[in-house]
Amino acid sequence: MTQCFHIKDEIRILGIDDSALISDNVLIVGAFFRGKGWIDGVLSSYMKRDGMDGTESIIKMVRESKYFQQTRLIMLDGVTYAGFNPIDIEQIYYDCKIPVLVLMRKYPDMTRIEKALSYLPHGGERLDIIKKAGEIFRVKSNDALNPVYIQCKGISVEDAARIVRLTSTKSNIPEPLRVAHLIATGIILGESRGKA
Amino acid sequence: MTQCFHIKDEIRILGIDDSALISDNVLIVGAFFRGKGWIDGVLSSYMKRDGMDGTESIIKMVRESKYFQQTRLIMLDGVTYAGFNPIDIEQIYYDCKIPVLVLMRKYPDMTRIEKALSYLPHGGERLDIIKKAGEIFRVKSNDALNPVYIQCKGISVEDAARIVRLTSTKSNIPEPLRVAHLIATGIILGESRGKA
Repeated sequence: MTQCFHIKDEIRILGIDDSALISDNVLIVGAFFRGKGWIDGVLSSYMKRDGMDGTESIIKMVRESKYFQQTRLIMLDGVTYAGFNPIDIEQIYYDCKIPVLVLMRKYPDMTRIEKALSYLPHGGERLDIIKKAGEIFRVKSNDALNPVYIQCKGISVEDAARIVRLTSTKSNIPEPLRVAHLIATGIILGESRGKA
Repeated sequence: MTQCFHIKDEIRILGIDDSALISDNVLIVGAFFRGKGWIDGVLSSYMKRDGMDGTESIIKMVRESKYFQQTRLIMLDGVTYAGFNPIDIEQIYYDCKIPVLVLMRKYPDMTRIEKALSYLPHGGERLDIIKKAGEIFRVKSNDALNPVYIQCKGISVEDAARIVRLTSTKSNIPEPLRVAHLIATGIILGESRGKA
């Protein structure tokens, strides 16, 4: 299922992040990049806080975009958005035919996540979707002291790790995700904020 | 009143643009850049469509930002935002002590603007504010076929023209303004659009 990947410096990547949870409809932002240096466009959508519509919301945003045909990789910041709205990366890959790379700053604490999910409706279903993202790999970023953790669909871990390094500048976070985060927090909070 | 300007490649610039007019409260976006290559943060605010609160809205957004002390230049896309909400660049310079560069793709048609303003309340006052932006200069951009037009406050035309060229890549629009526009339209319309 893994596509053969020729990685250009200007590879087209859509980085997607969510904003702060200040309402029940949470703003989702897509930053469409060529490589690490050039932002070509911005997408936006909404999903419900702790809802079950996250996967559908992302697929719709991606497929209806004018950048759809050019996008070579979708980058996600974890697999829960807008609180505990679970993102099914297999479904995204299946519906969009675009590989998906999930990036995490820390190794997720599954015990804590399972406990939190147990208080929500559809707890078991949420957990199943989260687990579908598969094995978690530790990869070296450009910041030697701060490795990142990734999950992949439709792309090998080796290619995904190369793209993480290719698209990061001065930090261990790839530019499409860093900028999607700045936009989402800047729009909702009035001023962008770094990750906790 | 013109500041002595040492222009570094990584000069901190805040580019400000508005979004499409789909409601009475119009989203304003600030993209805070280092030079042309690195976006450090995103700001947002609102102003009334065809209101008189634009100058105050921008000054408040700039002064309350954590980037305020670092900002060396404010770039505006014309001097009317959110329809015909006039922006007083003298007032911005006076209140923020940051030079202001106004960029226009075309030489403004003042006869058409005066006529449009005559249908609005405070028409004379709006026109006075617009005229305070002063002389309009044609400057060479990086795109030889597409010069741009600028107005300046607190910075010489020569320095302003150098900054326009320094911060533009692959287009005649400086990156802080290009990206502020992508964000504002992407958030309000779901997908960013180019300028008409």
